[in-house]
Amino acid sequence: MRALTLTGLVFILTGLVLAQNQTPLDLMPLPASVQTGSGQLPITQSFSVAVTGTQDASLDGGVERFRRQLSHLTGIPLRSKEGSTPTLTVHTERGRDAVQKLGEDESYELTVSETGATLNAATPLGALRGIETFLQLVTITPTGFAAPAVTIKDQPRFPWRGMLIDVSRHFIPIDVLKRNLDGMAAVKMNVLHWHLSDDQGFRAESKKFPKLTGLGSDGMFYTQEEIREFIAYAHDRGIRVVPEFDIPGHSRSWMIGYPELASGPGPYTLESGDPIMDPTRESTYKVLETFVAEMAKLFPDEYFHIGGDEVDGKQWNANPKIQEFIKAHGMKNNQDLQAYFNQRLEKILAKNHKIMVGWDEILHPDLPKTIVVQSWRGQQSLAAAAEQGYRGLLSYGYYLDLMWPTSRHYAIDPMSGAAANLTPEQKKLILGGESCQWAEWVTPENIDSHIWPRNAAIAERLWSPQDVVDVNSMYARMHAISLELESLGLTHNSARQRMLHRMAGTADTTALRVLADVVEPVKDYNRWSDENGPIDFHAPLNRLIDAAYPESDTARQFSDLVETFAKSGYKDEAAEAQIRAWLTLWRNNDMKLHPLLEKSSLLHEDVAISQNLAMLGAAGLQALDYLDKGQPEPELWKTQQMAIVDQSKKPVAGLLLQVTPSVEELVEATSAPAQSK
Amino acid sequence: MRALTLTGLVFILTGLVLAQNQTPLDLMPLPASVQTGSGQLPITQSFSVAVTGTQDASLDGGVERFRRQLSHLTGIPLRSKEGSTPTLTVHTERGRDAVQKLGEDESYELTVSETGATLNAATPLGALRGIETFLQLVTITPTGFAAPAVTIKDQPRFPWRGMLIDVSRHFIPIDVLKRNLDGMAAVKMNVLHWHLSDDQGFRAESKKFPKLTGLGSDGMFYTQEEIREFIAYAHDRGIRVVPEFDIPGHSRSWMIGYPELASGPGPYTLESGDPIMDPTRESTYKVLETFVAEMAKLFPDEYFHIGGDEVDGKQWNANPKIQEFIKAHGMKNNQDLQAYFNQRLEKILAKNHKIMVGWDEILHPDLPKTIVVQSWRGQQSLAAAAEQGYRGLLSYGYYLDLMWPTSRHYAIDPMSGAAANLTPEQKKLILGGESCQWAEWVTPENIDSHIWPRNAAIAERLWSPQDVVDVNSMYARMHAISLELESLGLTHNSARQRMLHRMAGTADTTALRVLADVVEPVKDYNRWSDENGPIDFHAPLNRLIDAAYPESDTARQFSDLVETFAKSGYKDEAAEAQIRAWLTLWRNNDMKLHPLLEKSSLLHEDVAISQNLAMLGAAGLQALDYLDKGQPEPELWKTQQMAIVDQSKKPVAGLLLQVTPSVEELVEATSAPAQSK
Repeated sequence: MRALTLTGLVFILTGLVLAQNQTPLDLMPLPASVQTGSGQLPITQSFSVAVTGTQDASLDGGVERFRRQLSHLTGIPLRSKEGSTPTLTVHTERGRDAVQKLGEDESYELTVSETGATLNAATPLGALRGIETFLQLVTITPTGFAAPAVTIKDQPRFPWRGMLIDVSRHFIPIDVLKRNLDGMAAVKMNVLHWHLSDDQGFRAESKKFPKLTGLGSDGMFYTQEEIREFIAYAHDRGIRVVPEFDIPGHSRSWMIGYPELASGPGPYTLESGDPIMDPTRESTYKVLETFVAEMAKLFPDEYFHIGGDEVDGKQWNANPKIQEFIKAHGMKNNQDLQAYFNQRLEKILAKNHKIMVGWDEILHPDLPKTIVVQSWRGQQSLAAAAEQGYRGLLSYGYYLDLMWPTSRHYAIDPMSGAAANLTPEQKKLILGGESCQWAEWVTPENIDSHIWPRNAAIAERLWSPQDVVDVNSMYARMHAISLELESLGLTHNSARQRMLHRMAGTADTTALRVLADVVEPVKDYNRWSDENGPIDFHAPLNRLIDAAYPESDTARQFSDLVETFAKSGYKDEAAEAQIRAWLTLWRNNDMKLHPLLEKSSLLHEDVAISQNLAMLGAAGLQALDYLDKGQPEPELWKTQQMAIVDQSKKPVAGLLLQVTPSVEELVEATSAPAQSK
Repeated sequence: MRALTLTGLVFILTGLVLAQNQTPLDLMPLPASVQTGSGQLPITQSFSVAVTGTQDASLDGGVERFRRQLSHLTGIPLRSKEGSTPTLTVHTERGRDAVQKLGEDESYELTVSETGATLNAATPLGALRGIETFLQLVTITPTGFAAPAVTIKDQPRFPWRGMLIDVSRHFIPIDVLKRNLDGMAAVKMNVLHWHLSDDQGFRAESKKFPKLTGLGSDGMFYTQEEIREFIAYAHDRGIRVVPEFDIPGHSRSWMIGYPELASGPGPYTLESGDPIMDPTRESTYKVLETFVAEMAKLFPDEYFHIGGDEVDGKQWNANPKIQEFIKAHGMKNNQDLQAYFNQRLEKILAKNHKIMVGWDEILHPDLPKTIVVQSWRGQQSLAAAAEQGYRGLLSYGYYLDLMWPTSRHYAIDPMSGAAANLTPEQKKLILGGESCQWAEWVTPENIDSHIWPRNAAIAERLWSPQDVVDVNSMYARMHAISLELESLGLTHNSARQRMLHRMAGTADTTALRVLADVVEPVKDYNRWSDENGPIDFHAPLNRLIDAAYPESDTARQFSDLVETFAKSGYKDEAAEAQIRAWLTLWRNNDMKLHPLLEKSSLLHEDVAISQNLAMLGAAGLQALDYLDKGQPEPELWKTQQMAIVDQSKKPVAGLLLQVTPSVEELVEATSAPAQSK
């Protein structure tokens, strides 16, 4: 009479993660100065906030949001009434402008004692930053929720701490962007760089040029009303919105509706052709004048990004009139033509009170020193710009779509490399940086997991003092902030489980999770090798590679374990027991998982990687046996295992088996002379 | 140099759940008639839908929503363009009225073949039902997503299949209600019974009586604009919205702003006093006339619920003028007075073209036969009403807040008990039923998990033929639908994990989940025993009892395992191995969990239940050892174990350890004469 029977037993091994070198406070970004006190401020139902000093609607909204978030984080309903003795007093000296400026004062001082907390800031912007710090201070303790006694004095290292979100390649709805703004606010980022147009789609409504979205998108775009409302949402969180309309390259979506802008004959479609704008025709500038004037009103920020990257000169080369123009104007090459285009464009922007921002390629001595160069190429570009007196932003090293481990992003500093040798005056020209979420491989469903929690570490790099570089501390704090972000509505953790359920149908996903926990998508641009042909931007992104986290916590922790074991001369029995448990889990997992992989078309491609994991588990266990005996392994055995290791290093279905190097280390260790225990 | 170390290893055991007696199709509710064919219809990116027959805006919206949901369930972006040969053709014969009527035709026929599918329905409402069936047919297969070839002819058993949501005790925001409407639509429910006022809060804006929400709520209520938009949202999904304003009892929230309505002297506050309306004053009916006229316009449904339950006569008894009135009008008692009130009220409703619905207590021969009686008392009330010619709805047995296992709700049929003996004509008066989600113990965070997936089984009871009663099939299909609902945006599964994280801080929650998986909140009204005093509706609901699922799948599956083992005469070695694995997990869990329980104030109260689980695990393992030996256990041992069992049966922190009876069975079995293996 039973409907269900347990036919397989899966043993999952999970570590109770405890911090070793962790800073006592799970703050991210780390404040400039933290002085811990003794005792703690209890957070109870009578918690209240008072705002003193300047009245500011945006701060009032921030405080109300803070109250809701605190209530959500603790599960304690908080009355919105102010108490006679407020738990937290927020004091600011002046109000905010309607448009947030670059370099606005974001500093704050936060003092928490056993009886209350005060947050002082020159501006509401600083108060918003301090509020986020307070939220991060609140933890569950044996006596209830509380914030520890502490004195924090904080201000950002760089004034421009941004994230680019590409919404052209895959459209990302406003509500998804909004929750990412919440995430940015939580880690004190202050610029959303909205990459609104590219070859694959034009996403901002223009009333002057309705065919931009009408023909230049798949029907998904933001109306001007939505944009205005979104900018207000960002402003409330202390985030500037800088739009990017990428020209003269990356501009196919313009040309579907307006082929006359192109340097070559149309017609074009969203799927094919690589048209670039024709900078030699006056009509192009007529269009841009009207367009910029419209967008300048829509986007209040002082800065306006014109892209300017990767201009493929083919169409210019192929067009005799354009080549004639180059010669007639005494230009040497296409680069000069682009500089000419940018000068014209810069004047249009200036007329509309906008400052031009563009990628490395716009750097040209003919442009005024007001422009800002954003570098995807590296600190040397930034340094070169600064030496010429141009301001710069670093994005090299912060490309979230490249699937790097957080530690790699974290190690990159805007002031390192060539930039380290700049004079103090030149260094001031480096405004900060931006992480970049290019959207070739994301959907509204998995974009959060591509951005978070890694983006929090980049945010820390741009906010915290330069000497905040401890990777272990970073990972420990990022874990805490990741949980906070998920609780505030981001889906970077929860979305994976839903995607696994989609692949598994109604089957149990435990064994699938064991596999998913140790794989990462291939890095850099390896997913779109030329062999695979051009990307189909309408293809489903519902495979394991789409659900996998960019960085495997399990692999990182296993690697740490193996390192501990090695450092002990392969004698640390506790470490060995844990390594064995993991290896056993992996060795046995394919047996449980294989039937499911066979049953789901979405999982067929993962059969080989699941088998590899099983073989790695077995290899690792045998290696441990040899290490235990303290005798070198038979030569043939090692050759065989290394073949398995080599095979496991090759991507399968776009996935890397990230525990492979650690198992390789164990297998290699069997050759080393080791003492018997 | 390692930040993190694995200090504890937790082995989690999870069953790969496979269905035994499962119906081949994971449909819920089960259709009236299903004929399976051979082959399947592939769901690919070229999937398209054509709508033929009557054009209907609401159906068009439904089809567009269906396309989005199908896209979301499969992860396949679907172009919204119609293909020349549509994959699915939806045909309806007539359009829908602006207001959905009770008893509107909801039947449909759905045919799926290898080359296409057709959905025929008399009305768009039927088409909406059929669309949900199609969505449930789509599964992942070895060759891609597909719907199996099938012919389904379907119509509901009852015309009124509703869910009551109480938004008075705890306010539930519109977006949370909307996702629950999505869930109701997925299981073909067609009435949302909106319990908008009760003692603890008045939640619908009245422009005529602004103090109803102004003073009679904590500031959280729905504006008329929100209500209109919500009703349209429900209508789009084929769901009627029936408002309930509970009078003359359960009406404290009226009296804060309008104490003149009460039968005793005020003033009243939201927290105290049990005023009921004064039916003897003409001014009361003046207010009700104006109020009903306003609400009748706001809520277009033909039915209007006036509550009428649990009228505590204390204030009537204490008021000499009311007692005089009773005598003067030749009434016998308070019941007669309530009937008088209801007659007056019914006339007001009728004037506004509304039909009165009320709870059992309104049943009185003086009321016209048009009224509908909703029974929280049982089928005998329903039968009594039907015998007198009144229509009825069953809610007894469908109270989701009582934390019953799904099987118990599922076993309750509106036509059973006293109702089984009604004449066919009388039976027609039983319109269906409603599940009830009373809101003493829910928040926007955990309400989904109190409703889903159990509500799907009640929906099946009210839609499917009476002989659909197989509990195993129900649980298997409910599992599939639960995953579908979570994917469509409900949070009944995911919310628990977030709540556990809140309790655990940054610690790993694996061991906490092991405990959470085997506990259930206490049943019936045991959470609010009088000993605990009145409920504080502003107290935090952030404890393990608030996160725990109403029904433990693990406990149910373990019970099945033990039953299998018992039936084999304790010889089934596979079953025993699985039982051992579970018991071992539980025995060892407290060791891992205890430090966390100590560290979190929210978890202190669970120390004892975690220890009980460990002791039960140990007791069960010892029992297995005795059973293996085939010898009776020492008398003292059993006495000791039964003491542990008895202790484990007592609720701890409002939680029941639901594996206790199965362990008890194992311990008891050691006494029975068993053969040695």
